[in-house]
Amino acid sequence: MRNSLGRELPEKIGGNIVRPYTGEASPAEPVPAVTRRTVVRNRGENKLLGSLREAIRAVGLRDGMTISFHHSFREGDQVVGQVMEAIRAEGIKGLRFAPSAVVNLRDFSLADCVRDGAIDRVEASGIRGELGDRLLDGSVSLAQPAILRPHGARPRAIESGELTIDVAFIAASAADERGNCTGQIGKNPCGSLGYSFVDARNAGKVVVVTDTLVDYPCLPASIGQELVDYVVQVEQVGDPAKIGAGAARLTKNPRDLAIAQRVADVIAASGRFREGFSFQTGAGAISIACTKFLSQRMAEREVKASFALGGATAAIIDMYDAGQIRAVECSQSFDAVAAKAIWDRPGVVEIDNAAYSNAFSRGSFLDRLDFGVLGALEVDVDFNVNILTGASGRMMGGLGGGPDVAAGAAVSIVALPIVRGRIPSVVERVAACCTPGETVACVVTQAGVALNPRHRRYEELRADLRQAGIKLTTIEALQRLAESITGRPQEIPRTDRPAVVVEYRDGTVVDVLREFA
Amino acid sequence: MRNSLGRELPEKIGGNIVRPYTGEASPAEPVPAVTRRTVVRNRGENKLLGSLREAIRAVGLRDGMTISFHHSFREGDQVVGQVMEAIRAEGIKGLRFAPSAVVNLRDFSLADCVRDGAIDRVEASGIRGELGDRLLDGSVSLAQPAILRPHGARPRAIESGELTIDVAFIAASAADERGNCTGQIGKNPCGSLGYSFVDARNAGKVVVVTDTLVDYPCLPASIGQELVDYVVQVEQVGDPAKIGAGAARLTKNPRDLAIAQRVADVIAASGRFREGFSFQTGAGAISIACTKFLSQRMAEREVKASFALGGATAAIIDMYDAGQIRAVECSQSFDAVAAKAIWDRPGVVEIDNAAYSNAFSRGSFLDRLDFGVLGALEVDVDFNVNILTGASGRMMGGLGGGPDVAAGAAVSIVALPIVRGRIPSVVERVAACCTPGETVACVVTQAGVALNPRHRRYEELRADLRQAGIKLTTIEALQRLAESITGRPQEIPRTDRPAVVVEYRDGTVVDVLREFA
Repeated sequence: MRNSLGRELPEKIGGNIVRPYTGEASPAEPVPAVTRRTVVRNRGENKLLGSLREAIRAVGLRDGMTISFHHSFREGDQVVGQVMEAIRAEGIKGLRFAPSAVVNLRDFSLADCVRDGAIDRVEASGIRGELGDRLLDGSVSLAQPAILRPHGARPRAIESGELTIDVAFIAASAADERGNCTGQIGKNPCGSLGYSFVDARNAGKVVVVTDTLVDYPCLPASIGQELVDYVVQVEQVGDPAKIGAGAARLTKNPRDLAIAQRVADVIAASGRFREGFSFQTGAGAISIACTKFLSQRMAEREVKASFALGGATAAIIDMYDAGQIRAVECSQSFDAVAAKAIWDRPGVVEIDNAAYSNAFSRGSFLDRLDFGVLGALEVDVDFNVNILTGASGRMMGGLGGGPDVAAGAAVSIVALPIVRGRIPSVVERVAACCTPGETVACVVTQAGVALNPRHRRYEELRADLRQAGIKLTTIEALQRLAESITGRPQEIPRTDRPAVVVEYRDGTVVDVLREFA
Repeated sequence: MRNSLGRELPEKIGGNIVRPYTGEASPAEPVPAVTRRTVVRNRGENKLLGSLREAIRAVGLRDGMTISFHHSFREGDQVVGQVMEAIRAEGIKGLRFAPSAVVNLRDFSLADCVRDGAIDRVEASGIRGELGDRLLDGSVSLAQPAILRPHGARPRAIESGELTIDVAFIAASAADERGNCTGQIGKNPCGSLGYSFVDARNAGKVVVVTDTLVDYPCLPASIGQELVDYVVQVEQVGDPAKIGAGAARLTKNPRDLAIAQRVADVIAASGRFREGFSFQTGAGAISIACTKFLSQRMAEREVKASFALGGATAAIIDMYDAGQIRAVECSQSFDAVAAKAIWDRPGVVEIDNAAYSNAFSRGSFLDRLDFGVLGALEVDVDFNVNILTGASGRMMGGLGGGPDVAAGAAVSIVALPIVRGRIPSVVERVAACCTPGETVACVVTQAGVALNPRHRRYEELRADLRQAGIKLTTIEALQRLAESITGRPQEIPRTDRPAVVVEYRDGTVVDVLREFA
C-alpha cells in the first residue's frame, strides 16, 4: 500500500489496520472526548510523598500501563531517569513510554529500559539520541513499532482516547505540597509547561516532581492542585543551562548565517510582512539566527509583530523587550532566558501546546500564523521534509511541531543547507517523510530559494518575491546541484520490519521507518 | 422522608428519586467525567458573527436545550437580557436556564421568559430577585422545581454529565475574533471569569459575547480560542459600577460594623491567626467591613496572609498592595477595583471556580483555608444557615460558595445581626436550610459569639477564644434574646408544591422550598 505521498506502508502494524495519509485537508469526523474519572480527595489527605518509589506505589502503577513526561528540560532533563530508576526498582515491566518527546539523555540509557523490559512501547514526537538509534539499527526492539506524532497530534490522541495515559510525571521547577506548580520560578526553571496541560487534564493519575517546594499557594500556578494526585521532591529536576543544547542551539557557521539572512529576506519580501504580522522561527540553528535578522528587517521597516509563537528563545525575548513583538505565546521555552521571561513580562505568556498546535479543536494559534520557519535534515523534489533521520541512519531529530506549523502557517519556509559535509540535503526522495510536501511553501538554501508550485500560496509568494528582486530557482535545480557536489549517496539497506511509524496531525500514517538490514 | 438535618423532603421530584443529605462527610463514588466531542475547525472559518441571533442559529440552539452564563457582572449584567431577547426573537422555547447564578436584573424580566415559555427550567447557585420571588409565590412556575447548587457543586454536576450545557454564552470585556477572551481589560471589565472555565471546557458550543474587540491575540486570554465556537460583538456587556451592587456592598451601619469588628476579634484570637494564614471574607456587607478590621489586626500583630480566596474586593486589593497578602486567588471580582487588579498585579490571579471550591476533584483552595466568613439571613439553633429567603418570603440571596466555604474552611464563621428590623435572624428552625449546621464553627452577632459544639474544631476554638478573653454565649441564648426582642414571627403558610430544591456539594438534597399558599 502507498499513501498519497507515495510512501510504502504495510497494511497492518501490530495487528492494527494502517490509515494512510490522504492529504493535508483530509476530513476528520469529530470524535468523542474521553476524560478521566472525577475523584474526591479528603482535604486532610497528604499529597506530599517521600520518594518517587512511594509515589509509584501510591498511584498503583502496574505492568503494561502508560506513563508520560514533558521534555521541556530537553537534554537537561533529570526526571525521566529518576522515575525510570524507581520504576525498575519496583520491578514494573512492559510500560508504554509516552513523553511529549524522547530527548537525548546523557546520563541515562532509555535503550536499557527497553532491553530490560521496563519499556516495551514508545509514543512521542521524536526519539532523538540513543534509543532512536538503537530502534533503527534493530539492536533493541519494542513490542510494537514506536509511534511518532507531531506536537499538535498528541493532544488529539490523548483526548480521543487513542493514547490513554495512566500516570503523568510532571517535572516542575516549583510546586507547593498540594500540587500547584510551575516551570517559571525556583532553582531550575524550564519555563512553559505547555506540553503537560493535556496530561494533567487527562491522565489517570498525576505526580508532580519538583526540586523546589514553595509555600502554599505556589505563585504562579501553571497546573493547579485540582488536577494533581501526588507531589514528590527530588534533588534536582533538570539543568536549565542544557535546555539550549540539542535542537536549540545558536550558530556561528557562516553558511547557516547566510541561509538565515536569506530566510529573513523572503519574509521581508512577502506582502504579509506588515504591521501586526506573526511568526514562528523555532529552535534550529538557522532558525535562531533568522530571528536576529528578522529583528533587523523589522527595525528597518518599522514593522512590529502581533505575536511570536511556539518555543521562545532569548532572541525572541530581546525583540519583546525592544517592543518589536506585542505577545510571545510560549508553548515551550528554548533557553534559560526564555524560561524566566514568562514570570515578569506580561506579554510573554505560557500557552497549552494544544492551543498552539492541535488541529482537532475549535482553533489554535497556528490558524493565525503568517510565517513559520522550519529546520530540516532533508527535503526532496516533492518538498517532503525529513526531520528525523540523518544520512548515517541515526535519529537526529524529532517531528516537533514541524508538520503542524507547515500546515498552519500561511507561509511555511524550510531552511537548510543543500549539502552537509558530503551528504546532500536536497534529495530526490527523503529517507523519512515527516512533513507532507504540499504543506511546504518554500525551501531556502544558501544556493537559492525554491517555491512549491503545489502550495496554496504559490502565486502570492512568487509575485512578492519577484517584486522584491529575489531570484528563484527550482527544487529540482537545487537537488541536481547538491548531487553534483556530493554524488548520490548509497541508500542504507533496510529490512521490512517497521521500527517507527510517523503519524500526521490526524493520525493517518505519513511514513514507516524500517529497521536497517 | 427527612434528611439528616431534619428537613422534610418528597421522595421524588419531577419523577426523579431524591437523594437526601446524610452528612458533610458522606462518601461519594468517583463518577466518570463526560466532556464534549472534539471538533475540527478549518483555519479559514470565520468565528465573528454579526449578531446574537446569528450566533444562536449558528450553534443550532433548539427547544429544550440548556444554556449557561456567568454572573460576574452581577446586577450590572447586560448579556443575559440581550441573549434572551434574541432567543425569543428566534422563537425558541422550553430552555433550561443554567447560569452560575441568577442575579436581580433591573431592566429585564426573567420571570417573563418563564411566562412566555422561553425558559422552563432553572439551575443556578441562587435566583435572587424577581424570578426567585415569583417562583416562591407561585405566580410563575417551571416544568420542574429550580435546582440550586453551591458554586463548588456546579463543576461537579457539569463534569459528571448531571448538568449538560448545550450552549454557553460567555460575557467578556475583551475578545479577539478567534475567541481568546478575558474579563480583565476593555471598556467594561468584570475581572475573573472563574465561573466560566467549566462551561468553556464542557459546553457543546461556546459563544463569547464582548463589547471590546481587540487585535489578535487578546492578551491576557483567560479562555482560549481552542474552546470557542463563535464571537459576537454587542454594544455593552455590563456595567462594572454595578458589580458592587446587590450582594457586594459596603456598610456604614454601626451594628454591622460592630459585628465585623467582633469577627476580626474571633479570627485574631485563633491560634491559626499566624504568619501565612489564609482567609475568605466574601462580599456581604459585614464581610467587607470585616476585611478592613482584619487588616488592622494583621498590622498590629505583624502577621501576613499567604492567600485571600474567592471573590476579591477593593479592600482585599488594598491589603495586597500593602504587602499584607501574598496571593489573592480570585474566582470572582466583587467590584471594579478588584476586576482591574488581576491584570497588573502578579499576585492577584484569576482562578477557576472549580479550583476554588469543587470538592469532587484532586483538591481545591478551600482545603487550605483557615478562616471563612459567611453572611446569612438566618441561622438556627442547630447552626443551619439560611442564605436564600427572607422573612417576607422573598428570595434575598443565593447559595454562592457558602456551603463550600463552611465545609472547607478550618474555622467557618457566620456573621449576622440577631434581629433585622422586627425579624429575628437567630431562630429555632431556619425557613430554608442551605448550609448544614455541622459545618458551621461559630456564629458571631452583636449580642455575642456562639460556638458550635458539634463542629470538628470546637475544642480548639473554644480554648483559643477563652484565652483571648472573648466571652462566649450559646446559640440558644442568642435565639431567645432575638425572640424576646421581636416576638416569634408567624410562619408564612406554604403549599406542598416544591418550587426550589437546595442541593449540597455532592448533589444530595439539603432542603426543598415550597410555594407559599
